[in-house]
Amino acid sequence: MINVALLGFGRIGQMHAENINKNKDLKLLYVYEKIDFLCKKAKKLYNCKIEKKYNKIFQDKKVDIIFISSPTNTHINFIEKSIFHKKTIFCEKPLDLNINKILKTFKNVKKYKPKIQLGFNRRYDPGHFSIKKDLDKNKIGKLQKIIITSRDPSPPSLTYLKSSGGIFRDMMIHDFDLCRFYLGMDEIVEVQAFTSSFDPMYKKIKDHELAVVSMKSKKGVLCIITNSRHCSFGYDQRIELFGKKGMLLSGNQKIDSTELFKFNQSSIQKPFLNFFVERYKEAYALQLNELADLHKGKVKSRSTFEDGYLALKLANACYKSLRFKKTIKI
Amino acid sequence: MINVALLGFGRIGQMHAENINKNKDLKLLYVYEKIDFLCKKAKKLYNCKIEKKYNKIFQDKKVDIIFISSPTNTHINFIEKSIFHKKTIFCEKPLDLNINKILKTFKNVKKYKPKIQLGFNRRYDPGHFSIKKDLDKNKIGKLQKIIITSRDPSPPSLTYLKSSGGIFRDMMIHDFDLCRFYLGMDEIVEVQAFTSSFDPMYKKIKDHELAVVSMKSKKGVLCIITNSRHCSFGYDQRIELFGKKGMLLSGNQKIDSTELFKFNQSSIQKPFLNFFVERYKEAYALQLNELADLHKGKVKSRSTFEDGYLALKLANACYKSLRFKKTIKI
Amino acid sequence: MINVALLGFGRIGQMHAENINKNKDLKLLYVYEKIDFLCKKAKKLYNCKIEKKYNKIFQDKKVDIIFISSPTNTHINFIEKSIFHKKTIFCEKPLDLNINKILKTFKNVKKYKPKIQLGFNRRYDPGHFSIKKDLDKNKIGKLQKIIITSRDPSPPSLTYLKSSGGIFRDMMIHDFDLCRFYLGMDEIVEVQAFTSSFDPMYKKIKDHELAVVSMKSKKGVLCIITNSRHCSFGYDQRIELFGKKGMLLSGNQKIDSTELFKFNQSSIQKPFLNFFVERYKEAYALQLNELADLHKGKVKSRSTFEDGYLALKLANACYKSLRFKKTIKI
Amino acid sequence: MINVALLGFGRIGQMHAENINKNKDLKLLYVYEKIDFLCKKAKKLYNCKIEKKYNKIFQDKKVDIIFISSPTNTHINFIEKSIFHKKTIFCEKPLDLNINKILKTFKNVKKYKPKIQLGFNRRYDPGHFSIKKDLDKNKIGKLQKIIITSRDPSPPSLTYLKSSGGIFRDMMIHDFDLCRFYLGMDEIVEVQAFTSSFDPMYKKIKDHELAVVSMKSKKGVLCIITNSRHCSFGYDQRIELFGKKGMLLSGNQKIDSTELFKFNQSSIQKPFLNFFVERYKEAYALQLNELADLHKGKVKSRSTFEDGYLALKLANACYKSLRFKKTIKI
Repeated sequence: MINVALLGFGRIGQMHAENINKNKDLKLLYVYEKIDFLCKKAKKLYNCKIEKKYNKIFQDKKVDIIFISSPTNTHINFIEKSIFHKKTIFCEKPLDLNINKILKTFKNVKKYKPKIQLGFNRRYDPGHFSIKKDLDKNKIGKLQKIIITSRDPSPPSLTYLKSSGGIFRDMMIHDFDLCRFYLGMDEIVEVQAFTSSFDPMYKKIKDHELAVVSMKSKKGVLCIITNSRHCSFGYDQRIELFGKKGMLLSGNQKIDSTELFKFNQSSIQKPFLNFFVERYKEAYALQLNELADLHKGKVKSRSTFEDGYLALKLANACYKSLRFKKTIKI
Repeated sequence: MINVALLGFGRIGQMHAENINKNKDLKLLYVYEKIDFLCKKAKKLYNCKIEKKYNKIFQDKKVDIIFISSPTNTHINFIEKSIFHKKTIFCEKPLDLNINKILKTFKNVKKYKPKIQLGFNRRYDPGHFSIKKDLDKNKIGKLQKIIITSRDPSPPSLTYLKSSGGIFRDMMIHDFDLCRFYLGMDEIVEVQAFTSSFDPMYKKIKDHELAVVSMKSKKGVLCIITNSRHCSFGYDQRIELFGKKGMLLSGNQKIDSTELFKFNQSSIQKPFLNFFVERYKEAYALQLNELADLHKGKVKSRSTFEDGYLALKLANACYKSLRFKKTIKI
Repeated sequence: MINVALLGFGRIGQMHAENINKNKDLKLLYVYEKIDFLCKKAKKLYNCKIEKKYNKIFQDKKVDIIFISSPTNTHINFIEKSIFHKKTIFCEKPLDLNINKILKTFKNVKKYKPKIQLGFNRRYDPGHFSIKKDLDKNKIGKLQKIIITSRDPSPPSLTYLKSSGGIFRDMMIHDFDLCRFYLGMDEIVEVQAFTSSFDPMYKKIKDHELAVVSMKSKKGVLCIITNSRHCSFGYDQRIELFGKKGMLLSGNQKIDSTELFKFNQSSIQKPFLNFFVERYKEAYALQLNELADLHKGKVKSRSTFEDGYLALKLANACYKSLRFKKTIKI
Repeated sequence: MINVALLGFGRIGQMHAENINKNKDLKLLYVYEKIDFLCKKAKKLYNCKIEKKYNKIFQDKKVDIIFISSPTNTHINFIEKSIFHKKTIFCEKPLDLNINKILKTFKNVKKYKPKIQLGFNRRYDPGHFSIKKDLDKNKIGKLQKIIITSRDPSPPSLTYLKSSGGIFRDMMIHDFDLCRFYLGMDEIVEVQAFTSSFDPMYKKIKDHELAVVSMKSKKGVLCIITNSRHCSFGYDQRIELFGKKGMLLSGNQKIDSTELFKFNQSSIQKPFLNFFVERYKEAYALQLNELADLHKGKVKSRSTFEDGYLALKLANACYKSLRFKKTIKI
């Protein structure tokens, strides 16, 4: 068994704990968490060691993987420590909100080459990954356009929103990463952004309710991402790859495959799987399998530190585009 | 232009008149109809000759096609007269409710070989015909099963129902014919039938609200037809061909291709095209094109007198199966 | 934890073992199996007790649930023994191929009222169960027709087929049960059957490749079931409930929700989930949850001994209908 | 009957001639065309008057409607003449490539208030119009986003492309208009554009193969339009309206509603209706009905001169955005 120390037992950390617990190769050895009742919850659910001082965890030779789902501003520190103690690393997105901190650590990453996997779960979704494979198999010819629709069913808490880094760094970062995933070696060179808010709350906290971004790659591929913090009909997650010889779609998943037909309406279908825990359940499981294989040295990471850095760079460029009402060169 | 005399200007006759009027090769020369206000309506709409004595029509050398949409019990007489006067014939289904009358005329049909087309409009539907072509192209391998669902949005008038000949001869006759169309040379040899009525009216008039028929062909193909005199969600018309190597479906058509997504429901679609006039609009137009080509001697008829006879034979076998609670050999 | 003894570690038994192992309330304590290499496999995978003498299992007070997935002809004996030792019972379908043996045990079931759940997994499928709930909520008004399509991707081994009891008792038994599930208190009173075989193998072993059954309930609901031992495009599992005010469908599930569009073809989708292990994965898990709750006395069983008996009775009636080419009264 | 004079019998003019000929209220009285063989073709098909001097047409009192489908640079002149002679006007898009010419005529339009309908056929499409009505009925709450995908199956001839005015004025003008149609009184205030070309031909003629435009309305609605001059899988025409309480889609139409299931692929559907003549057939017919009603004074025009002017203004803003790599204020 591979021993995992989970840092952070908040909303997303709890989901990771459950997934780690189910994985046949991984064992949840430690949970590091500061809040008391969360510690108790972790203890009760997984009967693992609870630790309030993270240094003991890093020093424990039995710990194989450091699994970082603590607040964003702790990520870089934990990555540095993991590199020093030669641990395999998982880190939630975003790496940090300060790109300079990231760049500094990037040097160590290049130098010490730790085994590291970023929390870009969508790369592991069977549907989203299937169209990547089909694209690479040339099923639609040369890629010309990527269109991503990503809408959360409802916004997170105001507290979360305030420290989230904003819609581009917190939410669209997944979509920047997916565009880069499909583009492969062809990097994005130009960015334009538009945002809009109907609920005045968003302006107060200097965030945005809706965002649209257009980007262009070196080879001329156009990428369009559209985000919304809310979506009355559920977690809307769609990807469209338009190529010279065809189109690939990865669509939404409904809670079951039943339909109702009645007077004046046909094919009424069930709602989408509610949110990321349900929608990307398989993706999270498959990503953990890769993490175990990465630790064993069997595979390369599908989502690297560099991916985390470059996605954030695009998010920052969007803020610049908004401020100057300009197309921004990357 | 090819001159057409339309016999019968009732509900279906009026639809045919409009279609004939739109066809670029056909001219509506005569309408034969006994009811005064229908005659006026025909005159007003099409400015054609109105005739109450059909003999004058048959004797008029200018008439090329006799188009029979009069009451069922007049069909055979009009076919006989058309054969005698060497007219091209279109005849609505069913040929007659009395199979002996049909058999007698069948001899003349074999002898004089008139150009005749039966009103099996569904054979001409682009979707239904497309799966026939794909079947013949071996896209699904050897045919093993045919499943037809056919439901009317609502029952016809009580007056119509009473003289309709019953659900098998009036409604399911289209589906018997479609099974035979897909089977090609492989004829049906055994039949089983079940019916049911929830509205007591159907028992009073000795008809049935719902009917299910299973049939087996000489080569072992199983055919299942399910009919209903009503369907709250519209005119339900579906065909499924199951073969050794695949399946072909011809599905319903909706009034437009829009969808609504809202809380708790997704992909809500528009209702089906309402009834045969709308659903089989293209089929009727294509059938008229074939009728014109048949008259010109360019093509063979896709739906022959024999098809009309054999479909009725199956309908009759169903009544026998019901009465004796047995599988009936054809 | 509730302790489970699994009797039979064949193909389906192995699937059950894995599901039991994943269930948070159940513990796999024993596996009873005669074949040596299967015993070793069970030991290795689940580290449970392996027992070749079933009496010791029944006598062990620690055993709460007897889980029967051994060959069909052992089911009744194991149920009797479970009743005697007051165990909670799960039993795979069919109960037995001999209806008289079943009837005898039925008396004990009525007398001693054991906690028993039959292996009718489809009743627990989220989709199939969702339309049952919607039907009971009157979403489509009065039920008038049930149409079930059930096709296996490919036939089982010849060895299995020979002792399976035939397509009606082995395969369609699930569909008989589903019809009864949707009908509720309204029992089936008449049955008609048709079969067909294209591969000569089926005739040699006196079984059938394809089968179609029509049934009628006391209240007049028509039920149509169509089965095939093979299906080139996967495990085809569809249910249609037609009511006075609407229709409910429970459709197939595809391996992901991607689509490909290319020249001359649009919306090309992925194949269906391969077979029962994948397609009814959730159903099996939910059924085990119910089994645990049944043992705890929290719920009634959704699939009873009587359900097992009545489904077999319908299967037998189908053979009678085939032999006498008649509609059979139940 | 309302007499129509058709100016221009090129590709689009010929389609209009056929539609006018089919309309029950309209009569094709004149065709004005300079190219000889086109004149002969018009004469042969419609037996109408052929005129090479347009003044005679404007002076003919019998002419009710001037139907302008001649080259773009003649539109404004013909509109002016029509206003002078008090004719009802239909004019193809774009009004002109020179916005100053348009502005000058706009003054006369405001002064003399001619009955005029612009060639924005998509406003009349049953699907696209149905979601407009549903939006106005508040089915999705407040509108927040419009996403339009519009791809032609293949580019027009090089000759056409060279004088087309470019992708924004020739092709996306329909989509600018549709956005304005859905926005109602809420006008667009900001525009961003991106383009890309993979085929070097487009750069040579200073046009673009692909284009993406983001726009923002006064009230904050985000509009995203994506165009392509080619689309291997057909004429891709989709509209998505995202509102606070739901989403409306108007989707593609396939040539029939059949599906093929085979090993490893399911639900393979037929291609989209090929191009605008087929896809917008009903829209063109409905627009002609409105034109007849407009002439009779029964209705207001759904697509006005102002709509033509404002769509072109947006097209021009896109070129400015491209040139200066900036967000452009309207």
